[in-house]
Amino acid sequence: MDRLIQAINAVQNPSVVGLDPTLEVVPKQIIDSFEEEVRSQVEEHDVTATMLAVAYFEFNRTIIDVISDIVPAVKPQIAMYEALGSAGIDAYIMTCEYAQSKGLYVLGDIKRGDIGSTAQAYAAHLKPLQYENMRDQWHEDAITVNPYLGFDGIEPFIEACVDFDKDMFVLVRTSNPSSAHIQELQINDSMRVYEQIGELVSQWGSSTVGTYGYSRVGAVVGATHAYQGARLRENMPHTFFLIPGYGAQGGDANSVAGMFDDNGQGAIVNSSRGIIGAWKQSSAYDVRMNADDVLELVATSARQAALDMRDALRLAVY
Amino acid sequence: MDRLIQAINAVQNPSVVGLDPTLEVVPKQIIDSFEEEVRSQVEEHDVTATMLAVAYFEFNRTIIDVISDIVPAVKPQIAMYEALGSAGIDAYIMTCEYAQSKGLYVLGDIKRGDIGSTAQAYAAHLKPLQYENMRDQWHEDAITVNPYLGFDGIEPFIEACVDFDKDMFVLVRTSNPSSAHIQELQINDSMRVYEQIGELVSQWGSSTVGTYGYSRVGAVVGATHAYQGARLRENMPHTFFLIPGYGAQGGDANSVAGMFDDNGQGAIVNSSRGIIGAWKQSSAYDVRMNADDVLELVATSARQAALDMRDALRLAVY
Repeated sequence: MDRLIQAINAVQNPSVVGLDPTLEVVPKQIIDSFEEEVRSQVEEHDVTATMLAVAYFEFNRTIIDVISDIVPAVKPQIAMYEALGSAGIDAYIMTCEYAQSKGLYVLGDIKRGDIGSTAQAYAAHLKPLQYENMRDQWHEDAITVNPYLGFDGIEPFIEACVDFDKDMFVLVRTSNPSSAHIQELQINDSMRVYEQIGELVSQWGSSTVGTYGYSRVGAVVGATHAYQGARLRENMPHTFFLIPGYGAQGGDANSVAGMFDDNGQGAIVNSSRGIIGAWKQSSAYDVRMNADDVLELVATSARQAALDMRDALRLAVY
Repeated sequence: MDRLIQAINAVQNPSVVGLDPTLEVVPKQIIDSFEEEVRSQVEEHDVTATMLAVAYFEFNRTIIDVISDIVPAVKPQIAMYEALGSAGIDAYIMTCEYAQSKGLYVLGDIKRGDIGSTAQAYAAHLKPLQYENMRDQWHEDAITVNPYLGFDGIEPFIEACVDFDKDMFVLVRTSNPSSAHIQELQINDSMRVYEQIGELVSQWGSSTVGTYGYSRVGAVVGATHAYQGARLRENMPHTFFLIPGYGAQGGDANSVAGMFDDNGQGAIVNSSRGIIGAWKQSSAYDVRMNADDVLELVATSARQAALDMRDALRLAVY
């Protein structure tokens, strides 16, 4: 986790911007602006998906350009791209590659998880040199992983992390309303399922602790669980936390403060819609704006929102 | 689940062939046979991934052609394709589309799972008409889903199943050795985590029960857990089971028999390496064979292995 921690320290900002483009946050003007070009290049039934994919990348690039000097990392959610099929996957990979080229740490939110032999294949996300002469296919510095299949589904990712200086974050306590259905099942008098998984995650990472005291196997702990997150922080001193659920999902700087260690380290907080959708809250927006003007508004709004989040976190955490 | 059950009944064969190509099961001669063509079309750093992707599709097509009259379904494991990046995803989609064109039911083994708004995006896998003028991007009839995030991560998939006549299978008791780490945690005197998830899966599907008495929300139950699977069968009378772990992972026809209902229905058994890697057991294989001859051997070996599996299941189940 050393590279991520160094990136956070360099900008004094423990936040990550979620690049989760959807029809709700990508202005229609941007999508439409690609119609003519796309129509001339792909078949009719591929026009919509391709227009959206190209617009998603353009949207992401605009945001990356205005935040790369103030945030350490971005977290593209692959589902939003997968929804567009093959063209979407290309936009995802291009987004990761572009963000890395701007010096950002790229956290691929892919939540993969499977049996050992299959996890071995998924671990390609973290392997720049999987086969001879093969370049990095995914351009991610870390990924998120689902623990439901147990250690043999986790081990191949840990090996890839060690071999290629990458990191991973295992789901422990997610931010969504019905996460309690399974995660909060009581397994004995003193422990729930997510706490047991927290213990396992600590163990799984124990041989990979880096310079700053944190292992390569992090944990996903939702901002919406302030008390549980603070307890996990105490019980998992060598586990770095990725905290989603800030902003749109209800978490704020105070609810995440307890998930940092005494030095204000050990966690990074994600906001997606709060940053990339900030333009929707702007009084300057007008549906008659052209694509360039909307992109400009997206950029200034996202940068301001990222600065506001940074300042709120600095106040609460440092 | 009606379409799958009808497909099974039509060939009297409750088995599904896992299309999980890897360097271990795809003969090197097939991969090498595409080198010249690929080199002339893509940049140097994309040659390896593209060669493998093209070879994976050719390998799959060969197998699909010789099994489509005797098996009802195929289950491509997306991880094997994701390992090749963008070119691999194209091979995955082409495989799904080709299998559907041959009348096969396509079960995409993607094990996705996330919070509600993200699951909504992943549900595109099951939506042939997600946006206006947009064609089916994935060509899957069903997918596998991970339950760790609870119901709000499941609901969007159920809605897509109902809207587009598709199905889904939720991980309940997986086939791998360390699956017990989380799935077998005891949550009270009479129940373990996987049993609780089994109950939830039953409930989640209860409003989607079809003509044959099974809901659209199936369960993944590993062949390696004969006793637990048989108990789940009793407790989940309206839940169709997808049973991985047959063959290479240690399950056999007898270990899965108890996971079918009294009419020999209610489950489908997957074999991957046992079918697509059957050529490796053939005494006819010779490393000096050319690509065409190896493909022929792959075809005849896979068909025979599929017939053997069908006959073993018929004997044990019907």
